[in-house]
Amino acid sequence: MSDNRPALGVGMVGYSFMGRVHSQAWRSVGAFFDLPVAPVMAVLSGRSEERTAAAAASLGWAAVENDWKDLIRRDDVDIVDVCTPGESHAEIAIAALEAGKHVLCEKPMANTVAEAEAMAAAAERAAERGVRSMVAFNYRRVPAVALARQFVAEGRLGVLRHVRAQYLQDWIVDPEFPLVWRLQKDKAGSGALGDIGSHIVDTAQFVTGQLLTGVSGLTETFINDRPTAEESAGLAAGSAGAESTGHVTVDDAAVFIGRLSGGALASFEATRFATGRKNAMRIEINGSLGSLYFDFESMNELWFHDHTLPAEEAGFRRILVTEGGHPYAGAWWPPGHGLGYEHTFSHEVKDFLEAIGTGTDPAPSFADGLRVQRVLAAVEESAAGDSRWTPIPQ
Amino acid sequence: MSDNRPALGVGMVGYSFMGRVHSQAWRSVGAFFDLPVAPVMAVLSGRSEERTAAAAASLGWAAVENDWKDLIRRDDVDIVDVCTPGESHAEIAIAALEAGKHVLCEKPMANTVAEAEAMAAAAERAAERGVRSMVAFNYRRVPAVALARQFVAEGRLGVLRHVRAQYLQDWIVDPEFPLVWRLQKDKAGSGALGDIGSHIVDTAQFVTGQLLTGVSGLTETFINDRPTAEESAGLAAGSAGAESTGHVTVDDAAVFIGRLSGGALASFEATRFATGRKNAMRIEINGSLGSLYFDFESMNELWFHDHTLPAEEAGFRRILVTEGGHPYAGAWWPPGHGLGYEHTFSHEVKDFLEAIGTGTDPAPSFADGLRVQRVLAAVEESAAGDSRWTPIPQ
Amino acid sequence: MSDNRPALGVGMVGYSFMGRVHSQAWRSVGAFFDLPVAPVMAVLSGRSEERTAAAAASLGWAAVENDWKDLIRRDDVDIVDVCTPGESHAEIAIAALEAGKHVLCEKPMANTVAEAEAMAAAAERAAERGVRSMVAFNYRRVPAVALARQFVAEGRLGVLRHVRAQYLQDWIVDPEFPLVWRLQKDKAGSGALGDIGSHIVDTAQFVTGQLLTGVSGLTETFINDRPTAEESAGLAAGSAGAESTGHVTVDDAAVFIGRLSGGALASFEATRFATGRKNAMRIEINGSLGSLYFDFESMNELWFHDHTLPAEEAGFRRILVTEGGHPYAGAWWPPGHGLGYEHTFSHEVKDFLEAIGTGTDPAPSFADGLRVQRVLAAVEESAAGDSRWTPIPQ
Amino acid sequence: MSDNRPALGVGMVGYSFMGRVHSQAWRSVGAFFDLPVAPVMAVLSGRSEERTAAAAASLGWAAVENDWKDLIRRDDVDIVDVCTPGESHAEIAIAALEAGKHVLCEKPMANTVAEAEAMAAAAERAAERGVRSMVAFNYRRVPAVALARQFVAEGRLGVLRHVRAQYLQDWIVDPEFPLVWRLQKDKAGSGALGDIGSHIVDTAQFVTGQLLTGVSGLTETFINDRPTAEESAGLAAGSAGAESTGHVTVDDAAVFIGRLSGGALASFEATRFATGRKNAMRIEINGSLGSLYFDFESMNELWFHDHTLPAEEAGFRRILVTEGGHPYAGAWWPPGHGLGYEHTFSHEVKDFLEAIGTGTDPAPSFADGLRVQRVLAAVEESAAGDSRWTPIPQ
Repeated sequence: MSDNRPALGVGMVGYSFMGRVHSQAWRSVGAFFDLPVAPVMAVLSGRSEERTAAAAASLGWAAVENDWKDLIRRDDVDIVDVCTPGESHAEIAIAALEAGKHVLCEKPMANTVAEAEAMAAAAERAAERGVRSMVAFNYRRVPAVALARQFVAEGRLGVLRHVRAQYLQDWIVDPEFPLVWRLQKDKAGSGALGDIGSHIVDTAQFVTGQLLTGVSGLTETFINDRPTAEESAGLAAGSAGAESTGHVTVDDAAVFIGRLSGGALASFEATRFATGRKNAMRIEINGSLGSLYFDFESMNELWFHDHTLPAEEAGFRRILVTEGGHPYAGAWWPPGHGLGYEHTFSHEVKDFLEAIGTGTDPAPSFADGLRVQRVLAAVEESAAGDSRWTPIPQ
Repeated sequence: MSDNRPALGVGMVGYSFMGRVHSQAWRSVGAFFDLPVAPVMAVLSGRSEERTAAAAASLGWAAVENDWKDLIRRDDVDIVDVCTPGESHAEIAIAALEAGKHVLCEKPMANTVAEAEAMAAAAERAAERGVRSMVAFNYRRVPAVALARQFVAEGRLGVLRHVRAQYLQDWIVDPEFPLVWRLQKDKAGSGALGDIGSHIVDTAQFVTGQLLTGVSGLTETFINDRPTAEESAGLAAGSAGAESTGHVTVDDAAVFIGRLSGGALASFEATRFATGRKNAMRIEINGSLGSLYFDFESMNELWFHDHTLPAEEAGFRRILVTEGGHPYAGAWWPPGHGLGYEHTFSHEVKDFLEAIGTGTDPAPSFADGLRVQRVLAAVEESAAGDSRWTPIPQ
Repeated sequence: MSDNRPALGVGMVGYSFMGRVHSQAWRSVGAFFDLPVAPVMAVLSGRSEERTAAAAASLGWAAVENDWKDLIRRDDVDIVDVCTPGESHAEIAIAALEAGKHVLCEKPMANTVAEAEAMAAAAERAAERGVRSMVAFNYRRVPAVALARQFVAEGRLGVLRHVRAQYLQDWIVDPEFPLVWRLQKDKAGSGALGDIGSHIVDTAQFVTGQLLTGVSGLTETFINDRPTAEESAGLAAGSAGAESTGHVTVDDAAVFIGRLSGGALASFEATRFATGRKNAMRIEINGSLGSLYFDFESMNELWFHDHTLPAEEAGFRRILVTEGGHPYAGAWWPPGHGLGYEHTFSHEVKDFLEAIGTGTDPAPSFADGLRVQRVLAAVEESAAGDSRWTPIPQ
Repeated sequence: MSDNRPALGVGMVGYSFMGRVHSQAWRSVGAFFDLPVAPVMAVLSGRSEERTAAAAASLGWAAVENDWKDLIRRDDVDIVDVCTPGESHAEIAIAALEAGKHVLCEKPMANTVAEAEAMAAAAERAAERGVRSMVAFNYRRVPAVALARQFVAEGRLGVLRHVRAQYLQDWIVDPEFPLVWRLQKDKAGSGALGDIGSHIVDTAQFVTGQLLTGVSGLTETFINDRPTAEESAGLAAGSAGAESTGHVTVDDAAVFIGRLSGGALASFEATRFATGRKNAMRIEINGSLGSLYFDFESMNELWFHDHTLPAEEAGFRRILVTEGGHPYAGAWWPPGHGLGYEHTFSHEVKDFLEAIGTGTDPAPSFADGLRVQRVLAAVEESAAGDSRWTPIPQ
């Protein structure tokens, strides 16, 4: 294979849900996109020797490390892909950047604003040395969401009046669902708010090209105690097994309202208790000239209302975002042959590699990740303080 | 016609949009429902002699009055149907109740909490004398909404976790749309909040069987000055015609979040700036055992997710609410032959007449109307006070 | 009431399903449309003295006759509205036309082509004397269907390539559903084919402005014997009650394919066995420049794909057919406040009265009804003859 | 990597659309499914030396051959994956089977019934020697379609009454679209009928578990002459370039009706002229106890109507086919994180490899492919013979 492109070794930390989908992206991206660099699935790191080795074999990683610090030290690693829970993002990402590795970091970028600030500062320093960083807000890379951004940027919606965003799931409705790490504040930072609320905050800011200026919010934990998860139980010596329960220390749901820098009213809802909604990441935007609607459960569709048409023939139209001219879509299949969840990661990795190859800074940057973190913190502050209006520092 | 039922004369005040649709209800109800009393379209009142006469002729009212006080005085009027703007509701309704007339009053019941309190007190006094009163929250009488209430009441949704309600319209998106009475605080009380926000507040409380305990809100007027409407211009002597503009004194949109007495989180949005949404009165309710979704733009459908089914066969199902066993529907056409907007008023009038005929108090009562008014006031108070949490007095 | 318009007395024959909905149309039309003539609900006729009287009282007809021939003879009857089963259409309609009465006749216009030919001939003779006739294909008066016709007529779809029409119901899926008159050939002429197939044939020809030139078809009766309906049992002396069964003599379903005069391929399906489909009268039309889709179960919506738009922003759009500029819709409520099944009849009656008042021939004419009848006959002929291609005489 | 599974070398013939998607399947399948054998992407063959090498590099094939006969001869090839146009399927597949290679063959299996018969015979002989063969009707592997099959097999639909299948595309609506190989009978066998009609015939027979017993059909070519495609032009010496046109020798659309072995009526439509429909592979099945609906444009959804529920709560429900318990879905992502077009091929390859590994015959077999071919031939025979009923030999 006569490939003159520079090869870039990827080292991935973590092999769980995010690790699996990132692996599929690294594995596939080169077959569909002409990239200026050639990614090599070099090293996977994870704490459990046995499980990491099995994951590497099944996912296609060439080598294994059991300490992420060793992964960062390797010469065959040019890119560090951080797929761990939020608690370790800051430490890993900053260390990697300081070691001169490009960093792709899962979201939410951090568990606290302080961590996020440190990460953004590290990213800024690294950028001066040509080291790139990016937060993995993958929903920006849904073709329909990218098309929505394009429509707004082109002025097709006019002056924006309303943003209505929801991220609805239902996987912990059952009180017997165990106390996994995502329900523990020390590991996950927050609950639905950080995990999925961060996505709709980022998506809203990305698609509108505006920032939230303030929020007023409520959070709620509907079920306060849950059976200890086996995994967690294993960590706690002397656990009494299935009988034991633990305290949920994060929100089950968050609702908040706010204003965008351009004057629009916004409302947000993130919940894991919307029975029957599986992964309904939704956003509707209403402007003076038109509106857009998206629901990830039908991820290949963007609904667009063109208000400049005569009223008698206007209406929300279902654009199947699978045309050759649509963002990302042309690299894949003919019109009507839809993409799936994992493709958003292939697109993310493609954009990241292109930025590295062309020496530009990819988006969303760690500064963008910090902006989202500040919104999450403001929601928590408002919720803790009588829902009072809480401005977002820019 | 051998009809032994007592005939009840109806006197309607106002013949505009609400007057037209109420007329269709009074005209049609008897052909579809077996009523204990027989309504007679007796008198229509309106200030303009000529226009009231024309309206009466076209709508089928037997007589005309040009002062609602004269209408109330008439012996052939047993029921007063108040279809005027909110500013006059309290005066007319209280006078009618005191004159011993049953009163059906359009929503929002009043423009202020004080008015609403006076109305509720009058209604309570009247009820002791067997005089009935009801607020015209017609959306309760959409068969799909009534079915939703039934499902919640039967426990099909379990413990309620979320209410998500929106009333989205777009009729004043154009800045050239004139300053009609609905945009003037002295006539309408408030804007989107009172006009359509009141509907979703009532519907949410009706379907859940719970009350809002507090709210945090934002309101916004996007377009502050508008061309003076011809009608209004006519009232203002010396108006300079189409050139003149006036100030919009109500909200264009309101968003608010709150909590229900049973512990659910709720979010609400009422707007006249949701481009492309024409009359999207929507509500979704998520409970521990199931969920419901309704959108008035598809008013014959109720979406129900039964979470007690195996996950592999569960999903939101589209119940076409046109079966014989569905609320109200059996009186009309065979399954699949849908109803329209006006039918909600026929159902309202039917329930009102049945309550009168059977000597019971109809719902929603003026006390219910007061409860809604208190929510609206709390939203405005919160919006004016830094979105602070504002409890609703019960 | 100073009404100088000529009053026209209406005499309706039959008071069952069609009679009820026609009554609502006659009752309501005047309040919503400015008509050149004023309809008066003069006489209702039905064979059962008691039931006809009760129906007249409840539906609002001023007088009663127990023989339709007496109804036709009355001077206060100017219009005869034929709402009986198909077997009596020809006799009543022809007699009424010969007596100089305008005739509105329910569909299918007749049970045989011969009857339809006699009716069309009678209508043609009557028209020469200014006597009007119309077939009640009410679906033409769904605003969305009328808008579809308008789009095709304006060339918005270009050259038509495909028509895909279905009328799906499920009311006789249960084998215990009784042998009502609609399942008996001597009364109904045919089954799903004539009852609902006639609607989609008419709608397809109306919307496209083209005629079917030939068909190839299959029909099927899935359940051959059913319990005798009580009503029918009553007619059969000595009936053994619920135990008795009778033979279904009509089709349960018909599927056929054909060609339109403009070259499009067409496919049709009419069935009462489409479990879960209640009244899904659907039509999709694909042309070189665009497509349309309609489903009566969502009767206020027309879906339009404009293929002249760039592919990246094209898609089927949901036009809510409730705007003031839409056919019929402006007479009713504001945008987004939908209409129901019965409104199609109000529109039908309005068009009929306007034609009478302005001295023009309304559509669909009896000649149009005959054209539909010929298609139905061709389908039956093809189905009986090895599905062979069967041309439609024009 | 301690992998004790037998490695099986794959040799793929063709690298165009089907070759690209098959490559993604071979590349990904091992990371998501526990397979009894380990596929190795060994050899790619194609006629153009340069293009084949480039495709192999980009798609990840280890070696290249420029004659498929050489590919078949190789010892490192255990499986032959036939991704060429239909004209060469029979020759390649039979040669491969005779050489003892397992064969996965794209659809339609052949261009004629004679070829298909020869292939089925070769497959039968090969099976006796433990050599496996399968036709790539990938839509059977859409999780929603597999779930549909499961529901029917479990009796959830009762006795089947109707099948309504359509495959609607619009990619050749423009008369300037060139004369590609799919529009030439010598290469493609037929047009929409074989290319996409074959899919709905197979899907209908698969989901119902029944066979079509006869058909009556129409076919049409709307645009008879098209610009010669550059590729084709290149093959024709002395071509005058863009000016030249060639004759379309296949159908643009086919509509046909039929009967299934269990008594249901069926209707089918395959077209490339359904403007606005991009890849609408749809099927609805109505049975005595329930109904199913699927549209590939929303491929992660299966709509199910359970007619055994009370009518008041029944309706088509949208099952998001992404649960762990759904066919194939559990191997991928959490609920609500949908799959795309290419996953159907990963599932196909997984099932094929499992059959090889466990020594069983995979489905759909070449005998199944022959059955579909016979239906296509019957449709053409009927269309050519006055749409006469044409039985399908079983």
